[in-house]
Amino acid sequence: MLPIKDQFVLPEGMIYLDGNSLGPLPAAAAQRIAATVQDQWGQHLITGWNKDGWMHQPAVLGNRLAPLIGAAKDTVMLGDTLSIKVFQAVSAALSLKPDRSVVLSDSGNFPTDLYMANGLIEHLKQGHVLRVVDPINMIDSIDESVAVVLLTHVDYRTGRMHDMARITQAAHEAGAIMVWDLAHSAGAVVVELDACQCEFAVGCTYKYLNAGPGAPAFIYIRPDIVESINPILSGWLGHDAPFAFEAEYRPGHGVERLRVGTPPVIQMAALESALELWQHLSIHDVRQRSIELSELFIALVEQRCPMLTLASPRRSEERGSQVSFAFDHGYAVIQALISHGVVGDFRQPNLMRFGFTPLYLDEQDVRSAVDKLDTILSQSLWDREEFRAMKAVT
Amino acid sequence: MLPIKDQFVLPEGMIYLDGNSLGPLPAAAAQRIAATVQDQWGQHLITGWNKDGWMHQPAVLGNRLAPLIGAAKDTVMLGDTLSIKVFQAVSAALSLKPDRSVVLSDSGNFPTDLYMANGLIEHLKQGHVLRVVDPINMIDSIDESVAVVLLTHVDYRTGRMHDMARITQAAHEAGAIMVWDLAHSAGAVVVELDACQCEFAVGCTYKYLNAGPGAPAFIYIRPDIVESINPILSGWLGHDAPFAFEAEYRPGHGVERLRVGTPPVIQMAALESALELWQHLSIHDVRQRSIELSELFIALVEQRCPMLTLASPRRSEERGSQVSFAFDHGYAVIQALISHGVVGDFRQPNLMRFGFTPLYLDEQDVRSAVDKLDTILSQSLWDREEFRAMKAVT
Repeated sequence: MLPIKDQFVLPEGMIYLDGNSLGPLPAAAAQRIAATVQDQWGQHLITGWNKDGWMHQPAVLGNRLAPLIGAAKDTVMLGDTLSIKVFQAVSAALSLKPDRSVVLSDSGNFPTDLYMANGLIEHLKQGHVLRVVDPINMIDSIDESVAVVLLTHVDYRTGRMHDMARITQAAHEAGAIMVWDLAHSAGAVVVELDACQCEFAVGCTYKYLNAGPGAPAFIYIRPDIVESINPILSGWLGHDAPFAFEAEYRPGHGVERLRVGTPPVIQMAALESALELWQHLSIHDVRQRSIELSELFIALVEQRCPMLTLASPRRSEERGSQVSFAFDHGYAVIQALISHGVVGDFRQPNLMRFGFTPLYLDEQDVRSAVDKLDTILSQSLWDREEFRAMKAVT
Repeated sequence: MLPIKDQFVLPEGMIYLDGNSLGPLPAAAAQRIAATVQDQWGQHLITGWNKDGWMHQPAVLGNRLAPLIGAAKDTVMLGDTLSIKVFQAVSAALSLKPDRSVVLSDSGNFPTDLYMANGLIEHLKQGHVLRVVDPINMIDSIDESVAVVLLTHVDYRTGRMHDMARITQAAHEAGAIMVWDLAHSAGAVVVELDACQCEFAVGCTYKYLNAGPGAPAFIYIRPDIVESINPILSGWLGHDAPFAFEAEYRPGHGVERLRVGTPPVIQMAALESALELWQHLSIHDVRQRSIELSELFIALVEQRCPMLTLASPRRSEERGSQVSFAFDHGYAVIQALISHGVVGDFRQPNLMRFGFTPLYLDEQDVRSAVDKLDTILSQSLWDREEFRAMKAVT
């Protein structure tokens, strides 16, 4: 079954180990986008909002995405960017704990989550504080001052994966609200939102879900609390009757209230194609194969490139779908790899990141990538002026 | 020079008078989008962020849009939705007036502006109030309790246009901050942001700027105040060094700080094509021609369809690029018109809206539209079951 390489556009000769940053183009997406542009926008114009279902696309695609993250129907909404969805979730979470002041996160969180939480609480001026601890101290740091625990499930640098069920339980035992960021989880590892009973989750769709650069984000809200949320970003498309143009905001039914403004219809078309790939895939199979590819990569690199140090957890159950190695010359090595057709990326200060996405990668790709890496390291290609001078890949 | 119909895809036989809701597809956009999808995303993958300039597109396109609204270089940023941009602007405006409590708007404002302002101040819990007055009382309502005047320049229902210079001056004389929503202005009427000295402006690009369904919004900030703004939506792409992944947020230079998350790269490609159309157009010429078409429409409708009542200002200097007529059976008439190839739209309770966009409309289109309208009214087509049963066009 896996990989399904023919379902993706992959440049000739490229081994793409950066699906943890931006997934490749699903083969069907180009045609779907073109049809949305030419047949829908071009021919239907304003009537596309009804005729082509543009208006309901964020909810429809939310329901297609939901099973991938263990969520029930009508609990997931697409839209905006991940930063905005973090803001919505933290605001809503704080409103559920008016007597508590701490937003607890960890130093492995992606910076925008911390920035957005901090921007919110600085402007609220209600005495909230953002407390950032080391990820290994997370459970011990959850006490009864904590209103919200805000964590990214899989660390963007090392691939270290939190125990979602255990931390959520600890948060709940302390009376706190749990917000998970699934940026590096959705489409990569098994996530059971309903089972873990977290209140909120957010994520993006351009990494392991392959929906394209700038694809919309998503937000999950546990259905038993949704009706108690009065959204801070109370946009008209989250209104119960957007086209009644009422003077007063009334939140829409359920997760509809977490919509804000006009959805990005063309990006949604790409997302629709990208999600269709999952109709015949099991996330359990994908995860299993990702572990196999990752373990093979770790074993081969450690055997052949002893100057690199594994920066990801060695135990697969503590690791997402990405493997990082530390090396002082990592930046130049990544540049050299890219120029030889193996695309990974680099994060400060010394991390080389490699994503293993079994949808379009197989064992031979892993072996070839290690061959290239070995060649570059043994020939000191990374030390050449041309690679040192290359501009950072963002 | 005008119209430039061959620069747009327009369905055979359709007269499109709804560019005030969603502009048509620019002919070059389909190819531009396809190239962005297939050649950039498909072939360059993650390296597109640098190689294809994706990362800087929101600022680059902000500078292309700026001259259309009388704004200087590096004062306009693309991104998010208009609702989000309203939220950013109102938050920033309030922070500049910490000793004042009133957000003043009018009942002609588009609901999402009021909803977003209200959502913000309800969550801030700092004693702010949203005061909504009749638009004709606007100037008299601006007093020294007012922190922010938040207005949409052109009324979405009637096309009534505020005097931007005069109201901004009144706001400033009372010591208030001015925020203009240009949703129905950008690309339609002459706007001189720098000259009027308003602090903030926001707008969308899918109406008269023809950038497609869900195209990104924009925000303008007066350059002398931008460095004093600490954004509430402090996303990583507004950070001074997004790829340093620092723990603390530091706002980026100038208007860069009003970026939030990952930009919608595919929608940006459509916007880029749409803005290129303006390279050889003068907004003054467009406005002049829009007035001529609108006046012709009003004269012909009043002559031939006396049961309709003009709901827009009669004086062109008080009217945007849209003409509305009131009629109790307006909804059914609009449905009948659409089925006969003349696309306008309807707003509660009884308004038929017609947008006049000289980029793709000429006098013959206006005459043909009135012919169809006259036929429908005289044959009571609007009264037929088939039109009454039609679903609302959003």
